[in-house]
Amino acid sequence: MGVIGIDLIKDGWFMEKGALWPGQAMSLEVAEILHHGRTKFQDLLVFRSKAYGNVLVLDGVIQCTERDEYAYQEMIAHLPLFCHPNPERVLVIGGGDGGVLREVLKHSSVKKAVLCEIDEGVIEASKKYFPAMSCSFQDERVELKIMDGAVYMKDHQDEYDIIITDSSDPIGPAEVLFEKPFYESMYRSLRDGGIVATQGECMWLHLNLITPLMASCREIYSTVEYAFTSIPTYPSGQIGVLMCAKQGCNLKEPCRSPSDEMQESFQYYNSEIHTSSFVLPEFAKRALRV
Amino acid sequence: MGVIGIDLIKDGWFMEKGALWPGQAMSLEVAEILHHGRTKFQDLLVFRSKAYGNVLVLDGVIQCTERDEYAYQEMIAHLPLFCHPNPERVLVIGGGDGGVLREVLKHSSVKKAVLCEIDEGVIEASKKYFPAMSCSFQDERVELKIMDGAVYMKDHQDEYDIIITDSSDPIGPAEVLFEKPFYESMYRSLRDGGIVATQGECMWLHLNLITPLMASCREIYSTVEYAFTSIPTYPSGQIGVLMCAKQGCNLKEPCRSPSDEMQESFQYYNSEIHTSSFVLPEFAKRALRV
Repeated sequence: MGVIGIDLIKDGWFMEKGALWPGQAMSLEVAEILHHGRTKFQDLLVFRSKAYGNVLVLDGVIQCTERDEYAYQEMIAHLPLFCHPNPERVLVIGGGDGGVLREVLKHSSVKKAVLCEIDEGVIEASKKYFPAMSCSFQDERVELKIMDGAVYMKDHQDEYDIIITDSSDPIGPAEVLFEKPFYESMYRSLRDGGIVATQGECMWLHLNLITPLMASCREIYSTVEYAFTSIPTYPSGQIGVLMCAKQGCNLKEPCRSPSDEMQESFQYYNSEIHTSSFVLPEFAKRALRV
Repeated sequence: MGVIGIDLIKDGWFMEKGALWPGQAMSLEVAEILHHGRTKFQDLLVFRSKAYGNVLVLDGVIQCTERDEYAYQEMIAHLPLFCHPNPERVLVIGGGDGGVLREVLKHSSVKKAVLCEIDEGVIEASKKYFPAMSCSFQDERVELKIMDGAVYMKDHQDEYDIIITDSSDPIGPAEVLFEKPFYESMYRSLRDGGIVATQGECMWLHLNLITPLMASCREIYSTVEYAFTSIPTYPSGQIGVLMCAKQGCNLKEPCRSPSDEMQESFQYYNSEIHTSSFVLPEFAKRALRV
């Protein structure tokens, strides 16, 4: 049993205490609790905050807020997509809130986007409380699969240009997504030239987790890199994106640029920040050997 | 009267509620309160945290923690210093904890470093509770002035290669440090080729403050830029550095590089992150017109 989100609310504040960031907690003032309960897989809380719009919490951990979600969704989607010359088939594993899907579909080259989310409860909550994130589920290029991503990939090999794993943390249902067999599955599901991007935790907190994971990835993929994005409501104010390419590829330099219209729809991503997001502070550079 | 730091501790957690970041608060678990009281200018609290070492709090706002202070101190010091071909005379305004001074003195070109701190209580607290930050006060190149930085600069014109203003937020004693007359004073105290770096608040929270301040600076200085550094214990997990050059100068490209020995002493700064720290997310780029 994970943490019960509503238990973290006291005196009108949600305090994100968590086993993965002991001794620190982002706290958000609560305006109204909109939903709490258990899905088939996890505890799900939605509250309206005073400063960050609606907030989605799974097993006590903030997944996204309306105010800053774009910083994560844009980066985990556009970093791999702009490194691929012609991304046609995209698989999103997790990402039930729909935010990554929204960004993926901005690329006109994309003919098919499969969202494989194990927990239908997350999709339902997003449709109800996060309209700006769940806006793309009806796009005709989208196929929704309510199932385990690893199981789905078994029957879909050599099929995708881009795979994005937008997961929660490695405690609870997402634990297997941070292990080598899952990265081997993604490798097999990629077509030639394919690229993977996964939620890469935080360099300030989890180098002990990121370092061995990157070492495993280097045994599988030709190119492995680590980028980060700044986002106030994730622990320590930033989160990483782990990127792997099936064939050798300079992931730090986008091979395509957004059109003016597309760039106008972005609040975080641009071609310059693509490159700079791979430049790490010295302590992380040393640990990750990038 | 500012906020009383100790009033923000409840159930063993310090929760950094503040008027400049309504509805959000970084929370740190407290192991032991080491000091609390009022200096001549402000409320000063020092506690030992469970995860971030000792923490200095002024008027209820976290100033630094032993675990992540380098992310700020290195960047606000080395961004201007590595843009100057031969920085000999450096003025630090504020910065009573000594961390910026420690970084400044790593540059062998520096012959004199004046620290002008209005509040002696901060220096005393740092000497007692933050030995790794206050380690440089005894360096023979250092001159300590306990006074208002603006008053000091009146009698010291055309004198400094670098001025670093390491201030608290624009509520309380540091308010004037965010206004145009203070930037005019710094301009007059710079020698030809001089560069200023100041604590530039947070792009996620304070674009309404940063935008007009940068506009004022552009009326005074030849070059004005904005960089940022990632730091878990500042509001929203990052803080900006506002940089101004007396004469035209590419502040984004360092003109010197650290020696190997110097680089080994850094935990955050390197020549690559110097440049990338000026690359802003789209929302900030648009607002600040950089």
